[in-house]
Parts: sequence; C-alpha cells; structure tokens
Amino acid sequence: GGNIEAGKVAAAKFNCASCHGANYSEPIDPSYPKLAGQHKDYLVQALKSYQRGAVGTSGRSNAIMETQAKALSNADIENISAYLASLKGSLVLKK
Amino acid sequence: GGNIEAGKVAAAKFNCASCHGANYSEPIDPSYPKLAGQHKDYLVQALKSYQRGAVGTSGRSNAIMETQAKALSNADIENISAYLASLKGSLVLKK
Repeated sequence: GGNIEAGKVAAAKFNCASCHGANYSEPIDPSYPKLAGQHKDYLVQALKSYQRGAVGTSGRSNAIMETQAKALSNADIENISAYLASLKGSLVLKK
Repeated sequence: GGNIEAGKVAAAKFNCASCHGANYSEPIDPSYPKLAGQHKDYLVQALKSYQRGAVGTSGRSNAIMETQAKALSNADIENISAYLASLKGSLVLKK
C-alpha cells in the first residue's frame, strides 16, 4: 500500500526535508539519516516506533521524531514511506 | 574517529550482513534498513540507542538489535559505523 504522489505531498507538508535534506538524501546534520531509497517497510516501522516512543518492545524515543510521527495518520505513514522508498532513482547500487 | 578496517572485521564478527544483506545494502527483509553509505554519526547514535533500549530520551527497543548492540564496545560501534559509512562507493547519488 501507500500512494507515492500523496506521500510526496505529505512529506512536503510535514517538512521532512528541513532536516533530512535535499532529495531526502542530504541530511543537514550527520546524526540524521538519509531516507531516499530506504525500504518502505522499514520506514513504516521506524515511524510507528517513534509514535510509540520509549514504551513496548519496539519503541523509539527522540524528541523531534516523536513529535513529527505523532502528527501523522496511518495513511500519512504509508504514503510518505512509499514515496521515500520510491526515490531509488537517486540511490543506485554501483556494481 | 573509528577505524574502517577494524570496523569491517567487527561487522563480519557480529554477522551484521546476516540480516542487513550483501554489501550491507540488500537486507534480507524489507523491514530491515540498508546501512551502506548511511552517515556515521547517525549509525553511532542508532547503535547507542539500541544499547539503552526503551528508556531515556533517545532509546530504541528492538529484540534483535538490543541484543546485538549490547554485545558491542564503544570502539566496536565507532569502527563499525565508520566502516558502513565508508561504503559510499556502492551508493552514489544520481544527479
């Protein structure tokens, strides 16, 4: 699932690039991850973990990302993750 | 900091590729992240968050990664992260 075009709009709306950088691949700080081309399922799981915060068996605690993730609907998470994963064009495996 | 060659040895010793796949860029499951070319500082922070688990303000809880991370020394974390970040050659930005 996940709608790539809707994800592009949502990623812009929630200002993901303000930290994760141009093409979601050039973070403004090296402690922030590159997202473009990452697996969609992993991105969904990471965002849901930030929603849970520091509880349960798969939570993640981070002041910025908890606030960001809690603002997202499940559809937003699916769409944004599908969009970021689709940016494979900018991350190619050089064999 | 971080020694790339020592990190290569440590990443092999701790079997990171058994989940994160060939070249640390082809995870065996789409819910696992690609690591090659990710920022070193982010990788260090992620591993330390897994060591902390679901506590504090920057913990991460995950059964597999908590066990993995807790087996690592600080030097292992620096070295493995430096090594994985150095694998930029396999992740090129297509402009």
